[in-house]
Formats: sequence, C-alpha cells, structure tokens
Amino acid sequence: MIRFDSGNLLLPPALLNRYRRQAAAAVESFREKSENGLHGFPHLPFQDQAIAEVRRYAASCKGRFDAICLIGIGGSALGAWTLDCALRRPGQPRLVILDNVDPALIGSALDSMNPRRTLVLVTTKSGSTAETIATYMVVRRWLGQNLARQVVAITDPEKGDLLEIARREGCPVFHVPPNVGGRFSILSPVGLLPGALIGVDVRKLCAGARDMTRLCWNTAPGENPALEAALAHYLMLDKKGKTIQVVFSYSSLLWGLAFWFRQLWAESLGKEGRGQTPIAALGVTDQHSQVQLYLEGPNDKVFTLWAVGGHRSLKIPKAFPDLDSCGYLAGQSLGRLFDAEREATTEALTRYRRPNCTVTLPRVNAYYLGAFLQLLEFQTAFMGELMRINAFDQPGVELGKRITYAKMGRKGY
Amino acid sequence: MIRFDSGNLLLPPALLNRYRRQAAAAVESFREKSENGLHGFPHLPFQDQAIAEVRRYAASCKGRFDAICLIGIGGSALGAWTLDCALRRPGQPRLVILDNVDPALIGSALDSMNPRRTLVLVTTKSGSTAETIATYMVVRRWLGQNLARQVVAITDPEKGDLLEIARREGCPVFHVPPNVGGRFSILSPVGLLPGALIGVDVRKLCAGARDMTRLCWNTAPGENPALEAALAHYLMLDKKGKTIQVVFSYSSLLWGLAFWFRQLWAESLGKEGRGQTPIAALGVTDQHSQVQLYLEGPNDKVFTLWAVGGHRSLKIPKAFPDLDSCGYLAGQSLGRLFDAEREATTEALTRYRRPNCTVTLPRVNAYYLGAFLQLLEFQTAFMGELMRINAFDQPGVELGKRITYAKMGRKGY
Repeated sequence: MIRFDSGNLLLPPALLNRYRRQAAAAVESFREKSENGLHGFPHLPFQDQAIAEVRRYAASCKGRFDAICLIGIGGSALGAWTLDCALRRPGQPRLVILDNVDPALIGSALDSMNPRRTLVLVTTKSGSTAETIATYMVVRRWLGQNLARQVVAITDPEKGDLLEIARREGCPVFHVPPNVGGRFSILSPVGLLPGALIGVDVRKLCAGARDMTRLCWNTAPGENPALEAALAHYLMLDKKGKTIQVVFSYSSLLWGLAFWFRQLWAESLGKEGRGQTPIAALGVTDQHSQVQLYLEGPNDKVFTLWAVGGHRSLKIPKAFPDLDSCGYLAGQSLGRLFDAEREATTEALTRYRRPNCTVTLPRVNAYYLGAFLQLLEFQTAFMGELMRINAFDQPGVELGKRITYAKMGRKGY
Repeated sequence: MIRFDSGNLLLPPALLNRYRRQAAAAVESFREKSENGLHGFPHLPFQDQAIAEVRRYAASCKGRFDAICLIGIGGSALGAWTLDCALRRPGQPRLVILDNVDPALIGSALDSMNPRRTLVLVTTKSGSTAETIATYMVVRRWLGQNLARQVVAITDPEKGDLLEIARREGCPVFHVPPNVGGRFSILSPVGLLPGALIGVDVRKLCAGARDMTRLCWNTAPGENPALEAALAHYLMLDKKGKTIQVVFSYSSLLWGLAFWFRQLWAESLGKEGRGQTPIAALGVTDQHSQVQLYLEGPNDKVFTLWAVGGHRSLKIPKAFPDLDSCGYLAGQSLGRLFDAEREATTEALTRYRRPNCTVTLPRVNAYYLGAFLQLLEFQTAFMGELMRINAFDQPGVELGKRITYAKMGRKGY
C-alpha cells in the first residue's frame, strides 16, 4: 500500500506521543460527523450505483467524440485534470478544460476542437458559478445544435440554475451529493465522469479509495497514514512554525494532483488567520529552480516528497565514454537517475535541517491514485479537527464574488 | 509602456522616501558591475549580431521540422516555455521541452514526435548538467542519424563537455555569454533560438527589452519601474514581514512567465537564511482554489497582480435571460468579466488589508514581453543590491549534485 515516512521530520517521539490522544479524538469526531451525513466524501467510493451510471454513460459515448470539453473551475476542474495527468492513455479523447474566463484560453481552446465531435461537461455544484455559466453560454453558441446529445450537466440534484438549464436543453444530469464540497468531489461524477470518458478505470480508482478509507478510520499509532500525516503537519505548523508546505512531486504524472492538493489544503485550512500555505514543486525540474531557496532561504517550510515506483524502462545508451559527464551515466537506467536525484534532495534537505517526509506510491495506476486521493482528503479533514477549524467551508471567497456581481451589474448587488 | 501600481501596498510615503538614497545607490552599484562586465544580462538585447545569427538559423529551418525538442533544465528551459506560452502561433512547429529525467515524461514525449521531423536543441551552460546529458544520450539514440543536421548545442563558447560533443557530432553551436547565468539568459540564444524556431519575433522582443533597459538605469523617483518594484518588495519583506510573494497572473498567456519568474526570484535571493518565497497563481482560476487562504489565512504575503489589455474579442451570447445567473452576463464581453474579477480580487485583498500591487501590460506581444522580462531581471538585481546579497550565484544546489554523482558512481565523488 502507500507508505508515509516521517523520519526526516525530526519530531521527538515524546512530542508525538503527547498528541496521540488528540489525534485519536480527531478520527472519532470526524467519523461521527461523517456517519451523521454531514460530510460525504468518505462514502463516495462505496456508491456502486453512481459509479455504474458513470461507466454506462461513458460506454455509450465510445467512439463518438474526439474531445471532452470540461467547463468548471476550482474543485469542478482540478479532479479531472488530476486524473488526466496521471492516467491518460493514447487513443482516448482529449480532455480540454475551460477553468478560466481568460478570452485567450477560451478562444484558442474553441479553435482547437471540432464542435461536431466534442462532448461538453458543465460542472458547478451551486449551479450559478459566474465563470462556468458565462463559458457555457459562449460554448453553447459554438456548438450550435445537438445540445441534448452533446452536453452533460453535473450539479446539485435538487436546485440551481444549471439544473434548470439542463432541463430546457434536454441533456443528461449527473449529481454532486449535497454533503460533498467541490474540493472533496473527485470521486463523485465531478471527477469520475470525465475520468471514465478519457478511459480511466474508475472501478479500480474507487477500489483503491475504499481500501484506503478502511485504513483511515484506524486510531492505532502508525496504522493510519492520513492520521500520521495530519498529526505530523499539525505539529510542524503549530510547534515548529513551518508556515509553508512544499509538495515536491517526484513524478510528472502527479503534477495535476499537486495542484488538486494545493486547493484542498489551502481552502480547507486557510481561515481565521491560520493555515499553512501549500506550494507545488516538481522533481527533478525544480531542483534547478527552487532548491537553492529551499536549502539556504528561510527555514519556514516542511517538505513532502512524493515518490513513485514502477518507472517505464528507459536505458541511457553508451556514448562518449571518455567524457567525464557522460561515462558514468552510460548503461544505467533513466529511472535510477531520477530516483537517485530524489534521494539526494532528501539527504541535502536533511543535512540542511529542513524537515521533510516522503509518501511512496508503489506505482501510478488507478488503484493507488484512488487510495492517495482518499488519504489526502482524510489527512485534510483530520488536520481541520486538530486545528479546531471547519475544513469544509470557504467564507472568504464570497466578498470577491459580490464585488464582481456589482461590477457586472447583476441585480441585487 | 508597462505600468507598476503600488498604491495598495499601503507603504507610508515617509518610509519610501527614507530609502530613496539606498535605492539610487543600488542602481549605481549594479550599473558599475554591469559595465565592468561582471553581469551580462543588461547587454543581451543590444547584441545585434547574436540576434541576427539566431534569426538566420531559424529561417534556414523553415518547413523542415514539425517539432522543436528542447533538452535543458531550469534556466535552460523556462525561458523557452515562457515564450511558447505567451507568443505561440498556429502553424508553427510544436515545442517539446524535456526538462526532467522522469521516464514517464521522456517516454511519452518521444512517442509523440517523429525523429525525422524533429530538431533537437541541447542547452547547458556548464556543458555537463547530468539531467541534460543523460536525456541527450537517450534522444540521440532515438534520432538515429543525421545528428549534424538535427542537433544544435547551446553552451559556453570555450569550455565544457557539450562543446566537445557538438564538435564530434558536427552540429552547430550557439553561445551563452560567460557573464550571463541560466536564469538571466532568456534574451541570449538560450531563449531566442527556440523562440525564433517557433515563430516568435525576437527582434521585437529585444526592442522591448532595450527600451526597458534604458528606463532601468534611471534613479529619479517614479521613473524606473524595476527600481520601484524592488524597493517596494524590499520594504514588504524587510519591514512588513511578507515572506511570501504571490505572483497572481491574470493572463493564462503569462503562466509560463510566472514559473520563469519563480526561479529568478527564488534562486537569486534565497540564500543566507533570507529571501522571499515566490508562488505562482493564475487568475481567475485560483480565485476558486487559493483566494480563501490569501484573504483569511496568515497575513504573510504580498501580492503582485499581472494585468493585461488587448483581450481577444469574445461576446457572451444571450441565453436564458430569465435565470438570475445568466441574465446579467448576456451581451457583455468575456474580457470584461475577466477584468472585473481581477478588479474584485484587488478590492477584496485591499479590504482584508492584504498588500497588493499591479503590473499592467498594454497587451501580450513580443515587444511588451521583452520589456517585462528585462524589468523583472533588473528588479531582481536591484533587490539583491538592497538586500546586500549576491543575486547571481546558487551555492546551495551543489550539495545535491555531489550526492547524486556519488549515488550514480561518478568517479571522484
């Protein structure tokens, strides 16, 4: 299964032990809220009927589309991008995500697709997100006709303007459970439907998430990776002043996941003047961009390295054996170099006394990705419990929305 | 020209005035080093011969290649990506950047290109960067033959293994001036050559950079945007404790630039336990991901919004006028919504007393991008002077390199 190694955080065992009871209480408290129906994400991978509906619909689309165009923003887009980055396979429709109203993005994206061969997914839980509605109005005109066969809505099952729009267009609707917020919705149709449409095995994704969910209800020390990670980060933030968490993904396949996690961690925990600022970094690339700052800049960061196994086999051929910078590489695998650089970064961080931990996925596939998604969601929920903060709202984004409405002349603002 | 508006930083004029003499001294001190040949970036856009050689070579490649494959990492890659993001035009060869040794990236990139129709650029200033050399050895085998006609080296004019490799392959070499470091090299062949090969007007790019360079030697208050920005950020870091700078790009065309700047700022200033951690954010997308944290999380950030004019014209068509979330949008332009959201974010940040400033580009084209690149490089150099830090080295990255060499069995490590 996925491994969490916190040895290089240099947390004294006595400190960890002092918080064991609080950590167990965090699990119990969150479990109660979840069982009472307040928070739905732990249940998503067990919803066989929703998963089957997604698979049925995706199967009915097979061969009909060259592009899946997803209109959504924030939690409505990042889950699909995560799956596309990690699990994309050749020969499947291309995923085009319209998660911005920048005319440069929308214009060039529309130029790149064929309106007769594009399926449009419109995702907004509230049904009224300004960016999503505006983009849909533009895309709708671009599609021209066949809206009932080329548009799918993903929204609340009972209310909101998108539900009404879907009714008028006559297009299918998939539901976001009301007790699941956008950033926790990847295993609902919000992520599963675009995933299935680009060929992701959503059954395996949910199987991994189910197995992880069972681990995440455990309160025994060392048995629950989400709890271990939450406790470690709570102590790094609260006791060690590490106000920044760098997620250092040593897998380009998990680059989308790093941005998905960045929303999860920032929006869930950044409130009441508290929170930990997440940063996405990519190994080995950012060794040549950010590591100078990480090692010799302010010691205000905790590092979470993501390591993966199962590299594609690629050997470095022999060439120029007499040159110093070539000879030692010849005949070794590229994956070995990649791993050695991650290990070297870990050692360098540790020698500079920069606390770091490593999460290891045996390989990047649907099963382990599903498990990792669920681990990160539980970790965030537990962190909220430990911080005594509501990890499931986002009151700060309302002001900007209201000012935008006023500027655009929406009635009542 | 480009405008820098620092009104919302809420810096008392008395404080700014107290540092005016120090700011002018920073310009003089850096100017002296630059004129003595210690730092070359201010001179790059004036090097007509180098620019002409790049253009000649690019013209000779016209129509021969479907893909330009750039092998390089850090400053050898981010400049090209910046130009590709901002100025990419349809009908030009695709730019494929191999800036990682992740086998997943290299494998799928090679699968996606035709070796007979690909021009390979290999960029490393030292000539021995492990990632670049290893990747070249893999790509060289994939190319098969015609190395002299399909490989170009970009490296130091006098030394290093890549220079020797180029000699043996019989392929052309372009030079990185010895007094220009990787992260300051975008206006040398490191950035100009890939730019020209994908159709960027490098003459206009350099014209913008030249005009900005002239402004950047000015010491009169308010006349030098790079100095104003450096002074403002110096005070935000040193006097106001803003240890994080969020670059909030309200242009998806400038997303590559945000990552280029992230290296420039982090690697130049993150040393001796000091520095300011840069974060790249994208408007409006990250309003639905990071703004909750920005407004209600710790007040440890200064925000730099990048605004652009000249939006592509895209109107929001009329649809569902009776629905609350549609009616007010109908008939307005998408660009207006995009701008209104940026203005709303600025207002929300200011109301929450989060210091923010805005840089405005009249439009995203080669001229203004060139000017902006040079502005940001001067700003970084001046910030180094104000901090009394050497902005042009990166001593912290050596340890990780040495550990990697040892793990890979390189002789002498």
